[in-house]
Parts: sequence; structure tokens; C-alpha cells
Amino acid sequence: MPNPSTIHDLPTPSLLVERSVFDANVAAMAKVHPGASLRPHVKAFKSSALAAQLKLAGHHSFCAATIRELEGMAKAGLGTDLLLANEVLDARRLGALVAQGHRITVAVDSTETIHAAADGGVKEVLIDVDIGLPRCGCDPADAGRLADLARASGLEVRGVMGYEGHLMMAAPDTKAAAVERAMDVLLTAHADVGGDVISAGGTGTYAVNTRATEIQAGSYCLLDTDYATLESPFEIAVSILATIVSISSKGWAVANCGLKALGMDHGNPTWPEGELMFCSDEHTTLVDPDANLGVGDQVRLLPAHLDPTVARHEQFWVVDGEQIVDRWPIDLRHW
Amino acid sequence: MPNPSTIHDLPTPSLLVERSVFDANVAAMAKVHPGASLRPHVKAFKSSALAAQLKLAGHHSFCAATIRELEGMAKAGLGTDLLLANEVLDARRLGALVAQGHRITVAVDSTETIHAAADGGVKEVLIDVDIGLPRCGCDPADAGRLADLARASGLEVRGVMGYEGHLMMAAPDTKAAAVERAMDVLLTAHADVGGDVISAGGTGTYAVNTRATEIQAGSYCLLDTDYATLESPFEIAVSILATIVSISSKGWAVANCGLKALGMDHGNPTWPEGELMFCSDEHTTLVDPDANLGVGDQVRLLPAHLDPTVARHEQFWVVDGEQIVDRWPIDLRHW
Repeated sequence: MPNPSTIHDLPTPSLLVERSVFDANVAAMAKVHPGASLRPHVKAFKSSALAAQLKLAGHHSFCAATIRELEGMAKAGLGTDLLLANEVLDARRLGALVAQGHRITVAVDSTETIHAAADGGVKEVLIDVDIGLPRCGCDPADAGRLADLARASGLEVRGVMGYEGHLMMAAPDTKAAAVERAMDVLLTAHADVGGDVISAGGTGTYAVNTRATEIQAGSYCLLDTDYATLESPFEIAVSILATIVSISSKGWAVANCGLKALGMDHGNPTWPEGELMFCSDEHTTLVDPDANLGVGDQVRLLPAHLDPTVARHEQFWVVDGEQIVDRWPIDLRHW
Repeated sequence: MPNPSTIHDLPTPSLLVERSVFDANVAAMAKVHPGASLRPHVKAFKSSALAAQLKLAGHHSFCAATIRELEGMAKAGLGTDLLLANEVLDARRLGALVAQGHRITVAVDSTETIHAAADGGVKEVLIDVDIGLPRCGCDPADAGRLADLARASGLEVRGVMGYEGHLMMAAPDTKAAAVERAMDVLLTAHADVGGDVISAGGTGTYAVNTRATEIQAGSYCLLDTDYATLESPFEIAVSILATIVSISSKGWAVANCGLKALGMDHGNPTWPEGELMFCSDEHTTLVDPDANLGVGDQVRLLPAHLDPTVARHEQFWVVDGEQIVDRWPIDLRHW
């Protein structure tokens, strides 16, 4: 495709980022958590080019959820301090990055993942602690033992990690206290583990988690309709551009954007101009009783859940209104 | 990655196809709709290598939902008779395929899409008719006028298309009669349109739609847990392979497969061995009170909705139990 200059030149569906909103989100977070006190989570946007923008804003350490994300970040020259905030057994792929000179830390929560890290050539780990979300993380009482085991296996233990994911959408009047209790658990484990790092948090708790040494937030820079329900300075910078390909005299219009362009676990996307009837594989049917839309019109839909939506696309088209000002490949997809 | 010989060599999550189940599904459909009476829909599996398997089973005409799917099929040498069963305005990309010698037909349902096809260099169209699903397709009473307009624009009108998508999951005792009524609408439109082709149907209606000249089914060869609730000879051939990366003494185990490996619009995947707690971006938490699972174990999850699940993966690993016998790239993704 020749270089598109406006959104009318793009194939649809395409993923758009409104540059000014993105910049405002990044600035708002950097004000609260400057430099290394934010460890941006690349799982939210899966783009090393976007991560490079966050580096320009002062953040040079990043975290990720998959090995492929770390491999891509290292390849893009962003391997100063990368954390795989997730458990893996195939740690040889991480060891290969260490051997290339990148700084790689991996989360561990079991004997098996500690042995995998040591055998795979990783040098540094965080002990991942269960602080209330039923997912990864060791029993807090077991954190000290695992740290000892890791050190005995030749690993440097940088500290602890926890994720209060169950509190991201908690009610505002109880959230701070609930995060405090979760962090009490993590800090008690930290006393048994040692190290400088207490890594936790996310876009939903960045303002109230005051005890982590670094916050793992990623969604804040683009947001979605779910996170937009929270009180915060962040606004939705991302949308899916679609074209109306069919209209019906019965009062609907069909956009060429569907389940294959969207993450649907938080429900339907939002069409700010009106009501949405349903999504199917490659279509979204919009309610349009007054026939305001015509075949060929473009519409923008807002995703309900950012991360799994982004992972369906090849690139972000960065726009200033209808003008295309940049393109950020989504190069960190798959595993 | 060196050639993997068993599923234990694969990175996870990975998409698996059980070869014997796939072959049985393909044979069962070919018995009912042999050769050109089935026009397999590549949107369900997005792989030209899988389509080539269906060609070996006797089907040489295919349909698709996106331009990229047609481009990939043409590139793979499967361009004998390709139908874009969807409306598009950017028909120049299809015209480019026609100019390369591929046979391309596109669905049209409006003045705009007819002009786009003619201007874009497409030679053949089907008139897409609304037969009850609130999506694309013209008013049935308008089909004849659109066919005249298409012919006046220099296009060959091959016939009509309709999709009774709203009836795929209809109750067995009413489905046949409801499909009959939808096909009455399509055949009445066909009388006004002319041409040899009456294209309709899908995996949920292939057995009861007896009046289409060709059935557009794709999901039947791999299936999913939703279609598996229907009475049919088809069984689930596809699964997502994941690795247990963490276990908790509180009674759960965590598999490294989540929202980014799954289509979630039909709900959670199924873990045949037990209960599933929830899915997050890169994890699925499984209920495992008796600690049957250990870190490093592999599990297979069954997708709730095939099409948007497949579109998240780079390839199918074709297996005979644990042995890998083939690899089919998922090369028809994106737009």
C-alpha cells in the first residue's frame, strides 16, 4: 500500500491512535510515576514503537507477559531492564536474550520455574506472590523459602512482585484500603525475600498503590471503555476505524469490523454516535433508524477491552483527526 | 524453532488439529455436498493449506469474507472460483486478482457496491439478498433492479446469495421449516435476478437447506463447542494446547492460554477434564482441588467459537495424538 495520508486511504478495519490524547495520557502518568517508578506493561499494546514513545517520556524499564514480547523489545533496542511478569518453563529463550547482553528478569513462584530460570541461563528473578487474584504467585508464607532456593540455584533475587488485578475495578471508596491490605501481604513477603524491587499495580490502582517501588501499568496510555468508567485523568485514545458496507431500509447499517478485529470478553465495542445491534465475524450492525449513515461512510468504534483488541491488529495508525501522522507496528503479538 | 516432532516440543499456547477427526468431518460433508455443491467458507479457518485439503476432497470453489482471504487463496493457487461473500468498496484489490487470471465473484447489495465492483475491474457478481439476518443483503424486492443495474454496468450476474445465519442454532423441530421460508425469499429474488447460482447455508443448516445450489459452510471441518451442541456427524477437531505454569495450594492451576489466544464472544473455552474459573489476557485459571495438575503439564482447551479463535493464531499444528504430522499456516488473517 502506498503511504496513506488520511484515514480515508486506509483499508478497514484499522486501529487508530489519536496522538494528542495519547500524549496527554502519557504525560499524566509520568507526572505521578516518573522514570523507573513506572514499569510500563507492553502486554497492553504489544508494540515496541509505542514502547519507544514511553521511553522518550522517561520510562526505560518495561514488563511483559510473554517471551515473544521480550524478544521483540530486545530486538528493538529496549532491553535495558525487561521483566517477564509471568511464569515460564521455556526459559532458554530468555537465557538467549541474556547472552546477547539484555537485562532480563523473570517472575518465579515454584521450584519448577526457579529451576527453569537457572537452567535456561536467566540470571535475575522476582518472587511472584499471590496477593488475592486467583492466578499466578506463591503462597506469601512460602516466598522466603523460594528466594533461598533461587539464591542457592545461583540466581540473583531482585525482590518481589504481586498483582492486585482483582482490585482494578473496585469501588472508589474501598479501593485504597483493599490495595493497602494486598500490599501488606506483599511487603510481609518482601521482608522474607529481600531485594530492592517491589513491583505491583496497574492502570486501575496506579493512584492508590503507594507502596510499590514500581507500578506495572500499560492500558493507561490508550485506555478502553471499561477503564474509562474509572475516575482518572486518562481518556480513550484508541478506536477501530470501519467502513459502512451495507445499509437496510429496515433501519440498520453494517460496518466492516467484527469479532476478528475486537476483544469481546468485556462485551461489545461502543459506537459513540448511536446504538449497536450486534457483532459477527467481520461485521457490526449499527442501529440507524433515520438513515444517517451511507455506504462508504467511516465510523470509529471504541474497544471494550484494549489488550485483546490490539492483539488482533498488525499496526496502530497514529492520527491527528483525519491526518495520519505515524504508524506503529504491533510487533509483539503471538508467543 | 527446529521441526517439532511431538506436542511437547511446541511453544504454548498452540492451536492443534486432530487429523483423524478433521478427515472424518471432511468426508461426512463431502458425502452430503460433494464437489461444487459445497463452497467451503475460508473465514472459518483462514488457511490456504487447510483449503488445499478440502480441494483434495473434491471442493474446488471457495468463499471468503475479506479481501485478504481472497488474495491469499489466489496466491496459493486456489483461484479457480473464488466468491467474496461480503460487500466491499475497495474492489480494485479484487480487480487486480482478476487481471492476474483468477476467477473472482463479489457479492453486491447496493448501487455503491455495484459501481465499486465495475470500477474496480471485477467481472462477476452475485446479488446478496436479506433473508432474515439483520446484516448485509438487499431488500428482496430490490434484487431484480440491482441485477439490471449490474448488467447495465457491464457485470455478469451469476445469481443470488443469502445467509440464514439467524437460523444456524435454531431448534431442530422448527429449523427445516424456517430455512424453507428463508429460501422462499431467496428463490423469489432469484426469479427476478436470473443466473445459475443460488448460494446460501452454513454448518448449522447444511442438512436442511436443500434448495441452494451450493452451501457456504466452513466451521464443519474443525467445529467448536457451540456447533457441537447441534445434532450432526461433525466432531471437534481443534483445541488450544497450553502449559500449566503455576499451581496454588488453594485449589487452582494456571494454564498459559488466555484472551489473546481465544475468541470470547461465545463465552469461555471448555476444559474437558474439569471446571474453568476464568480467563485473563494470557492465562486461564482451572479449578483443581485435588491437585491433579502439576507445573509443566499440558492441557487442551476447546474453543467456544472457532472463527475468531483461529484468527488469533499463526498456524495449525496437525496432530495424531501427541505426534505432529503437519503444519498449516494461518495465512489469511487481517484485512
